[in-house]
Amino acid sequence: MADITLRDIDQARKRIVGVAHRTPLEHSRRLSREHGRDVMLKLESFQVTGSFKLRGAMSKLSLLTADQRESGVLTISAGNHGLAVAHCAEALGINATIVVPESASRAKVDAIRQYPVTLIERGASYDEAERAARAMELESGRTFVSPYNDEDVIAGQGTIALEILEDAPDVEAIIVPVGGGGLIAGVATAAKATNPNIKVYGVEPEASPTMSHALRAGRLVEIEEQKTIADGLAGNIEPGSITFPIVQRLVDEILLVSEESIRNAISRVAREDHVMIEGSAAASIAALADPRIEGRRVVAIVTGRNITFDLFERVVTQNG
Amino acid sequence: MADITLRDIDQARKRIVGVAHRTPLEHSRRLSREHGRDVMLKLESFQVTGSFKLRGAMSKLSLLTADQRESGVLTISAGNHGLAVAHCAEALGINATIVVPESASRAKVDAIRQYPVTLIERGASYDEAERAARAMELESGRTFVSPYNDEDVIAGQGTIALEILEDAPDVEAIIVPVGGGGLIAGVATAAKATNPNIKVYGVEPEASPTMSHALRAGRLVEIEEQKTIADGLAGNIEPGSITFPIVQRLVDEILLVSEESIRNAISRVAREDHVMIEGSAAASIAALADPRIEGRRVVAIVTGRNITFDLFERVVTQNG
Repeated sequence: MADITLRDIDQARKRIVGVAHRTPLEHSRRLSREHGRDVMLKLESFQVTGSFKLRGAMSKLSLLTADQRESGVLTISAGNHGLAVAHCAEALGINATIVVPESASRAKVDAIRQYPVTLIERGASYDEAERAARAMELESGRTFVSPYNDEDVIAGQGTIALEILEDAPDVEAIIVPVGGGGLIAGVATAAKATNPNIKVYGVEPEASPTMSHALRAGRLVEIEEQKTIADGLAGNIEPGSITFPIVQRLVDEILLVSEESIRNAISRVAREDHVMIEGSAAASIAALADPRIEGRRVVAIVTGRNITFDLFERVVTQNG
Repeated sequence: MADITLRDIDQARKRIVGVAHRTPLEHSRRLSREHGRDVMLKLESFQVTGSFKLRGAMSKLSLLTADQRESGVLTISAGNHGLAVAHCAEALGINATIVVPESASRAKVDAIRQYPVTLIERGASYDEAERAARAMELESGRTFVSPYNDEDVIAGQGTIALEILEDAPDVEAIIVPVGGGGLIAGVATAAKATNPNIKVYGVEPEASPTMSHALRAGRLVEIEEQKTIADGLAGNIEPGSITFPIVQRLVDEILLVSEESIRNAISRVAREDHVMIEGSAAASIAALADPRIEGRRVVAIVTGRNITFDLFERVVTQNG
């Protein structure tokens, strides 16, 4: 079983300095008033490439050997991880092939296209694209960079918790969007190792409750992929993913949020805070209304901003 | 004449730490390609309260004596400075009265209302509101906090240049939106003191070319205020403002941008970078097309994000 430690996350932090920003942790007057607690937002939407995925990608790619760099990398992504890999690969002079599903957000695909990488759109869903990428891996000789099923990627995402703990040492709960579980595995590892009393809550869209089902079943079970505006959280989790046992062991609760509540969160952040955020990021803000959350000082991780403008506009005007 | 030095700006930096973020300087692939130079954006739109004005307000308010704090402050603002004063006044336990013109952006006025301050909407234009505030000052016993005509405010805004120079020591030109001239006075002071070869360009909307006229006339001259989407740059400059001689001495050129080019910049940043920025901030991006700009490595200061969503939406959908 994967054994990622606080020390691994500290090490990852050294590897990502200079590429990743130290993002702000901002107290939200509005959300604090609404939810009757101190709500702080960790704004990874202000991160380079527009999402936290840069941390994991840089943590991983900076560890490749000279031979591995020479042979290049291959990755699969709903979008943000691919964009992060493209950015880091260029910075490190590594050749990258990025597979995305045909359903990927145009905001993300168009951004990846700006980089000197090979972009392959394959498969109607994330799951199909992942199978295609895994098949390519075998023949390509490239290093496969999983968006979540990788210790070094997880350690990179965990660096977010180190920053949160520095900025708010008395934090009592952290709310984390869950797709494949890489972010929450890293954040929970760092947070619980520092203070086991900190609650770590995952958030999934009701439309894609993969981790919730897995926790209930005690193992990863395949679910039918439904459409969600939180495109980064959609899809099944790879069988045998190392994120699952970490989540089993460390995460206090997985909260589910409706599409409507995610849309409302996008809209209110746009209208009142003047910030564009994507569906996956809005999920953790939507989850703040969940009565199961304990703690007076709560951090919601706002994971990214890469949303196609036309979708964003539709959501905000319809949810005014 | 005001004599603001690099040392004053260094001092101001110490006063704003812990309240203001150190904002990112991001290389823009898109703008670099379009303009054939290295374009970096200093993203003050990610600053606390959504604009750079926090720096000047904190620099000023943190210097008030116990007596002055007790008596409170009075300020006039197109919006962002008022919001910044509200934020810092609350942090420091100072009572604040904020005068804004009736024409101020709702995005800004609504945000100010969230703070425990006295908000007064007075006068159809910025100029009228400023006259009203100055009249109130005489009877109120409060300390007047000018948005730009104040050495400590200017020193606070100048801290942006210190961060730029640390992140890009080889910067050759800095582009700065100009309203009352507080930001450019601070930035030019810090930049030219560090390296006199760095070009400092101001940007004004064609609809409100106050500083351009003043430089040509050799003195501040009143112009007729026209409507501009860059609401933070509108209005005349207070007679006798200390910003004017600093701009005369240190600024290389004032560039003018059309309303259309500002709107286009807002739209493209939203569509391609997934970031909301306000008109004043977009002015410095619009100015990148000006052929008078010299230098291979250019920083445009993106000053803020406080734009009413309905206006933002209209601009981006009309300038797709």
